[in-house]
Amino acid sequence: MTNWTLAKRAASMNPSVIREILKVTEKPGIISLAGGLPSPKTFPIAAFKEAADKVLLQDGASALQYAASEGYAPLREFVAKQLPWDVSPDQVLITTGSQQGLDLMGKILLDEGSRLLVETPTYLGALQAFSPQQPQVVGVDSDDQGVIPDDLARKAGEGADKARMVYLLPNFQNPTGRSMDEARRQAVVDRLASLGIPFLEDNPYGDLWYDQAPPAPLTARNPEGGVYLGSFSKVLAPGLRLGYVVAPKAVYTKLLQAKQAADLHTPTFNQRMVAEVVQSGFLDQHVPTIRALYKKQRDAMLAALSTHFADLDVQWTTPTGGMFLWVRMPEGIDTVAMLPAAVERNVAYVPGSAFYASQPDNRTMRLSYVTASEEQIHIAIKALADTVRATLAAR
Amino acid sequence: MTNWTLAKRAASMNPSVIREILKVTEKPGIISLAGGLPSPKTFPIAAFKEAADKVLLQDGASALQYAASEGYAPLREFVAKQLPWDVSPDQVLITTGSQQGLDLMGKILLDEGSRLLVETPTYLGALQAFSPQQPQVVGVDSDDQGVIPDDLARKAGEGADKARMVYLLPNFQNPTGRSMDEARRQAVVDRLASLGIPFLEDNPYGDLWYDQAPPAPLTARNPEGGVYLGSFSKVLAPGLRLGYVVAPKAVYTKLLQAKQAADLHTPTFNQRMVAEVVQSGFLDQHVPTIRALYKKQRDAMLAALSTHFADLDVQWTTPTGGMFLWVRMPEGIDTVAMLPAAVERNVAYVPGSAFYASQPDNRTMRLSYVTASEEQIHIAIKALADTVRATLAAR
Repeated sequence: MTNWTLAKRAASMNPSVIREILKVTEKPGIISLAGGLPSPKTFPIAAFKEAADKVLLQDGASALQYAASEGYAPLREFVAKQLPWDVSPDQVLITTGSQQGLDLMGKILLDEGSRLLVETPTYLGALQAFSPQQPQVVGVDSDDQGVIPDDLARKAGEGADKARMVYLLPNFQNPTGRSMDEARRQAVVDRLASLGIPFLEDNPYGDLWYDQAPPAPLTARNPEGGVYLGSFSKVLAPGLRLGYVVAPKAVYTKLLQAKQAADLHTPTFNQRMVAEVVQSGFLDQHVPTIRALYKKQRDAMLAALSTHFADLDVQWTTPTGGMFLWVRMPEGIDTVAMLPAAVERNVAYVPGSAFYASQPDNRTMRLSYVTASEEQIHIAIKALADTVRATLAAR
Repeated sequence: MTNWTLAKRAASMNPSVIREILKVTEKPGIISLAGGLPSPKTFPIAAFKEAADKVLLQDGASALQYAASEGYAPLREFVAKQLPWDVSPDQVLITTGSQQGLDLMGKILLDEGSRLLVETPTYLGALQAFSPQQPQVVGVDSDDQGVIPDDLARKAGEGADKARMVYLLPNFQNPTGRSMDEARRQAVVDRLASLGIPFLEDNPYGDLWYDQAPPAPLTARNPEGGVYLGSFSKVLAPGLRLGYVVAPKAVYTKLLQAKQAADLHTPTFNQRMVAEVVQSGFLDQHVPTIRALYKKQRDAMLAALSTHFADLDVQWTTPTGGMFLWVRMPEGIDTVAMLPAAVERNVAYVPGSAFYASQPDNRTMRLSYVTASEEQIHIAIKALADTVRATLAAR
């Protein structure tokens, strides 16, 4: 008999709650507000087809070969140039989705038991990406602007227990949809600099603003003090798995070595295709169409919530960009317990508890408004309100 | 000032020797026998173009969307069907290159200090992939058939120090080109079963046999006792980064969770394209053309070695498939020290010492015969022999 003795860390690897929910939503007729799937209407299929053909015909031998772990040079140059601070292409590492940037950062910065600060709540996939390194994850108290600077100082830790990094999503955060304003950004960056704690800034949604571009990134304010993660998943398509890391020199070298060990390099063909598409200035015309679509769908969800939850003690965020909205249900509702009843009424969501490092607020849920149509959103929110009323009535 | 405190494991992450060498080989005019780059002549560009167009036009919305972490179902079915033992598609996990399979296996099986057995020498990229988990890597004595079963037993460890797994490359091993014969395979599998130690079988080159298919894989002999890694990099193209893991149920669940945390899923578009290409039976015609090409180039290298090293005490392997050949230079040659002189004469190789867990044999080197043409191989081997003679003469 073979003895499979698993690593200690494997015990803490659990099936993703979101993943399990998405399986449920495969039930025909269900309207899912659970997934974070960009609307396929926004995928530039024709541009990709043209790029794929061009790359294969003109340079197939290189586009299909092994390549440098750093990434395709013209794509690194594009990334560096479009960021709103002074970035050298040498600081850009192309990753297999920005999820991989989280994995690599965990590998180079976190030992077992290392203190890691996160927002309350925070992106579930980040908690999963860091989990193999078995850090001590500490939630920082957060308001509708993200982390509260004074609580950063209280949770910073000291000596060997000093926080290795703070993981932050300043723009249209997953799961809440909230953003940090100018003052909060500067306060957080200043406080972290005085504490000597690096930040990991995750910005997959920053380009999806509706009325006004968000304030400058944290990394633009202190490029040596943090690492920045970006993604092509929300402005082009997630199925190509293309993201990037921007890092100071000392950190970059280790990230690169971790990247090479993880998958040698990000698929060459995908990098070439996307470079081909973006170099023509395609995003300048394309991204505004995504913003317009998602804004309309956000408005539809806000209107549906106002209509169907008018008589209930329910709060929700009003995101100014991104893909998600965060809802807090009336007292007496546990969103995990209520999910089967919601699915019964053909609507799915993600219970908020999955997004907390500890002490979850069981009344919360994350709703995505980008995958379902406006009409579907109205139907689904009504079904959700019906579920809440029925649940409260049955208590 | 921000304090970047790196994880302990980051200290052991070092630039890959091969990688640094490949940089040197960018010098114009050099013939590199160093890289493990498949010949771009073998890349089926037309088939990929047709597949890319078809996938985008017929199902672009799905092909560019987020997808299941397990991989694209038809591709998992293809993989299961073409393997020479009874495999269910449920056991197949599509990975971002088979390198990622190594990373995932390290994550779920290795704690800090865990005993990990490897061949002597072994694939450098595997040592790098396992290194973040800081295992205790133990080289098992090996002959021209791979690991010696009795030494497996001697190095197995006991109690808490019992080996978590043995990493094995039975076919046309990287770096030596050697293969395990029928008797050795069975002896190793039986011995491991009696020791209760799982194996990780890495088989990127198995389809590249020249005259005769290799004996059945280790995993076919004990499917519950090991995990199998395969790849599309050598039979189609490496730039798409497509590999797969075949694992018993208990291990599969943890691998899947680690995969999801690492990069959510392997690029959807790449999986769809490759599924499109392979489902038509394309590999049946295509792979024999790769075998024929590489066999001719192996013959060219063997002939060149016989010609140019006739008067020197040099041994080399005669691989019956794959991409690499292993050479042991005369006493007095240190292949690391000699490399700059070889590059001076416009030839590059990988010093063998990089491939040892400990106690390297500094007289060895790895030569690839698949990237350079027959004519270039002759020129390069002559230059290498000249370098050796000059080095010996200068002692």
